[in-house]
Amino acid sequence: MITSRQNSLVKRIRHAMREHAAEIVLEGPKQVEDALAAGLKPVAVLRRGVDVSNAVFDSVADTRSPQDVIALFERPANDAQRILSRRDSIVVALDGVQDPGNVGSIVRLAAAFDAAGVILLPGCADPFAPKAIRASAGAALSVPLAQISVDELIECGLPLIAASLDGDQRDPPAREAVLVLGSEGSGVSEPIAARAQRIFIPMSHRVESLNVGAAAAILLSLSFRLRG
Amino acid sequence: MITSRQNSLVKRIRHAMREHAAEIVLEGPKQVEDALAAGLKPVAVLRRGVDVSNAVFDSVADTRSPQDVIALFERPANDAQRILSRRDSIVVALDGVQDPGNVGSIVRLAAAFDAAGVILLPGCADPFAPKAIRASAGAALSVPLAQISVDELIECGLPLIAASLDGDQRDPPAREAVLVLGSEGSGVSEPIAARAQRIFIPMSHRVESLNVGAAAAILLSLSFRLRG
Repeated sequence: MITSRQNSLVKRIRHAMREHAAEIVLEGPKQVEDALAAGLKPVAVLRRGVDVSNAVFDSVADTRSPQDVIALFERPANDAQRILSRRDSIVVALDGVQDPGNVGSIVRLAAAFDAAGVILLPGCADPFAPKAIRASAGAALSVPLAQISVDELIECGLPLIAASLDGDQRDPPAREAVLVLGSEGSGVSEPIAARAQRIFIPMSHRVESLNVGAAAAILLSLSFRLRG
Repeated sequence: MITSRQNSLVKRIRHAMREHAAEIVLEGPKQVEDALAAGLKPVAVLRRGVDVSNAVFDSVADTRSPQDVIALFERPANDAQRILSRRDSIVVALDGVQDPGNVGSIVRLAAAFDAAGVILLPGCADPFAPKAIRASAGAALSVPLAQISVDELIECGLPLIAASLDGDQRDPPAREAVLVLGSEGSGVSEPIAARAQRIFIPMSHRVESLNVGAAAAILLSLSFRLRG
């Protein structure tokens, strides 16, 4: 049993939780089982009070009420081009969505409405951060996720569609398009906005904007209906 | 300047934040100005470092990065029957939605899609809790909100519509109906479910359910389109 916070594996888990690099950390039996079922490669699985002492376990776990297992996995390697090649649905691109809860919620919606996957432009929260995985209700382990650069997205060959308050169409595409969602405050970044078709969500004038998760729910569900 | 945590006004603010009863607490200049503009009645407005010492202010404020003003207001008194009497839109009823972030998000959506108001059945988070007001982006100060009992709702005379995974219609009503949203885990309570028309949101079989805020976004935006 590991009883030291300085243990190399414990330090590696802490590093993975902080750095969001080549390895990711999952907590709780549901997440760990889902990840194994999804084919993610485990590096280590540590049970509280069995493989690691309660005190060391609790010092590492992210949740306030830590569950009894924490695991280190290799980050799933997905290729943005492969996601973009699926032409029977739409692709979701996130641009500067910094809140891991919003990223996770949108990944969950991508699963619910069968998007081809979620591609992340620079400035987004890590979809494998513990808070994002929780908000995704585990969908982060099954929806294809990949990073992409602004240039790669612009050159991907699919129409880019951006939600906007002054858009000129109401219905999102059913397939063969990228739905770009920006941060609520600043929207999508300029080079993408300049090349995107603008779509708007009809709403009252009583509010200035919608939360990005709400916009995603509305547009992805409409796109799913149009495919249906 | 108030310099004691035992000051009676400070204790009254702390009490209001805990009890969610006849008085509510708002934080930050934006919320306080919006509340005054919306006609809420202020009991006291305390500026950090002016009316109250920094230390006492920070001990009371809810946010981690406290803003420089906190205010105590009388809770706005709305009548559920008045909300239900508006027949040119739909009414949102929440049943056991315990998370203040979800309650606030739905209040914001009610404003965005011009619902008549939000009525809260027992077991919901207080829409005037600081976290709910923040999630509402201030809409809690303009959207009519009221408590209602299960019996009152059942006897309100309007059709009750509940989102369900096995519903038999896809489109929400445009007006003259109550859209009842339950907690994600347990749905709407039995006496309401027994009397409600079930509506479902078409989605893939990859997920078991949607977050209640996502369901609200989809159904309220569709209802707004149907009115439009």
